[in-house]
Amino acid sequence: MDFNVEEVRARLKKLDTPAVSDAMDSLGVNRALHGIECRTQGVKVAGPVFTVQYERFDKSPETFQNAGNYIDQVPAGAIVLINNYGDTSCTNWGDILTRKAMSSGIEGTVVNGSARDLAVVRELGYPLFSKGIYMVSGKNRVRVSATNVPVEINSVVVEPSDWLFADDNGVVVIAADNLLQVLERAENVEKTEERIVAAIESGASLDEARSQYGYSKPWEVVNGN
Amino acid sequence: MDFNVEEVRARLKKLDTPAVSDAMDSLGVNRALHGIECRTQGVKVAGPVFTVQYERFDKSPETFQNAGNYIDQVPAGAIVLINNYGDTSCTNWGDILTRKAMSSGIEGTVVNGSARDLAVVRELGYPLFSKGIYMVSGKNRVRVSATNVPVEINSVVVEPSDWLFADDNGVVVIAADNLLQVLERAENVEKTEERIVAAIESGASLDEARSQYGYSKPWEVVNGN
Amino acid sequence: MDFNVEEVRARLKKLDTPAVSDAMDSLGVNRALHGIECRTQGVKVAGPVFTVQYERFDKSPETFQNAGNYIDQVPAGAIVLINNYGDTSCTNWGDILTRKAMSSGIEGTVVNGSARDLAVVRELGYPLFSKGIYMVSGKNRVRVSATNVPVEINSVVVEPSDWLFADDNGVVVIAADNLLQVLERAENVEKTEERIVAAIESGASLDEARSQYGYSKPWEVVNGN
Repeated sequence: MDFNVEEVRARLKKLDTPAVSDAMDSLGVNRALHGIECRTQGVKVAGPVFTVQYERFDKSPETFQNAGNYIDQVPAGAIVLINNYGDTSCTNWGDILTRKAMSSGIEGTVVNGSARDLAVVRELGYPLFSKGIYMVSGKNRVRVSATNVPVEINSVVVEPSDWLFADDNGVVVIAADNLLQVLERAENVEKTEERIVAAIESGASLDEARSQYGYSKPWEVVNGN
Repeated sequence: MDFNVEEVRARLKKLDTPAVSDAMDSLGVNRALHGIECRTQGVKVAGPVFTVQYERFDKSPETFQNAGNYIDQVPAGAIVLINNYGDTSCTNWGDILTRKAMSSGIEGTVVNGSARDLAVVRELGYPLFSKGIYMVSGKNRVRVSATNVPVEINSVVVEPSDWLFADDNGVVVIAADNLLQVLERAENVEKTEERIVAAIESGASLDEARSQYGYSKPWEVVNGN
Repeated sequence: MDFNVEEVRARLKKLDTPAVSDAMDSLGVNRALHGIECRTQGVKVAGPVFTVQYERFDKSPETFQNAGNYIDQVPAGAIVLINNYGDTSCTNWGDILTRKAMSSGIEGTVVNGSARDLAVVRELGYPLFSKGIYMVSGKNRVRVSATNVPVEINSVVVEPSDWLFADDNGVVVIAADNLLQVLERAENVEKTEERIVAAIESGASLDEARSQYGYSKPWEVVNGN
């Protein structure tokens, strides 16, 4: 993890999740969060994850539990990843957390569960990814059981040391250890694809274009790199 | 139900479904329609429900049955709630019903099933909420079995005397009997949240802001109301 | 199939999928692709299908297989229909195929599976319909097993001789053999609906309007055609 966070973030944001996922494929790694949708079309976020694990909480006290106060501990530039085990029948994110996240410089939020206050989130342009949308509060239904721990989402284990990268297509999880390698290969995938696109636009068949520019191994840029 | 309908509608529309759902939580009530999505982003509707129950209809006559003619009986200001048992493989709402509803001053429509003619619905700005989108007609597949009866949607029973309130986050069901109480508490939730947001924007931590403004019982406005 | 393709395409595009589905209902035919959503709001496409069947491919070679090269064989004006058996955990369509399709004059793409590169697809305005959105490549996970063969999607068998027609509401499948008959009836459905809408807007009840304009058999235009 010997790299400059802001430089790596900026380089990732010039790419997209398909190129990064292809680079990970070239390393034999498949770690993406299936079933979680982009709720704020056109956004792109990259950064270290801050994991938040929820658990059921069946007691009904007479006051709301301040389940979201972990937000004060999330560092600027991080992406909050909330695991509510995919349960969409109550929400784990809303307008107050959104406003606090924005004022703290948090990059965005990914919820394996539901979020609410979509109108506010969209008006503020806060990057939000979730499995569902609903309005019933998680307060007194679920509570934070741990932060900064490994969380498992659809058989992908996300470590507190991981990075997330997300756009219109969804969310990928990258180990900090191979972030630079993934980044370099993804940049090569992007360059290869740009050349194939240019060839296609000059009238080449897809077969010709792909053969010429090494599409079989797009992470190794050939012919003109 | 001793209240002014238009005044209550206007007060509800200044709020959102999360605040109203929180107010209902404070009364121990959870009545929202899980799985039904807003199809016309940015709308907000409130009003008494007009329930329409469908049933399967397996005979295949040689003419279409006029299944939607109930629309002539829906009063202005009501919200049509159609229960097709969550079956999305045929539609229970479309362009003609939309145009008729608009010319009758109907507030909006919620379908536990599918709707069609999305292009027309969006162009006209008619508030539509549905489980699915499709184009196959419900004609000769399902038919209205009753109107103005209790309908059950995902274990929530909606009574003909209930109100609906819906926005980007989905649909909540409010009993007319406690509508004023829910409204008052929801307005307090909103005030509490505004103060928390103001405190956050002045640099307070979420923990401080919530403690100061009574977030544990947001329906009881404290410190400055 | 003795008709002018461009004339039929233009006539279809003046209609919508609900009218065409109603016309098919009048002939006792129900062939629509349930569960496949429009990903590029506001588009409308019509044309002969080009079917592409995928199969699982569990070997892991060290290079990407050029699974998408069938695109060079798709004729201008066709709609690509990809059957990945509804599996959304990897993608069968993306930016390079989109650009190649556009430069080849292909009408649009329907995927019974996932697509990626949504930002590019939307920016270019390419008509895309899919069951899911994701970013993990289909390369080395699935491969094309056949093109121009019958494919089965949710119990609807699409023949290589069929046409597709798709809009915001989804995708319908029309046999070339009865395309002209469907088209004529759909145009009548549309005319009947226009008269009903005009009557409603003049203040008629839906019941009156439908009775007067023959809504029970909207494919047989009455009273003024």
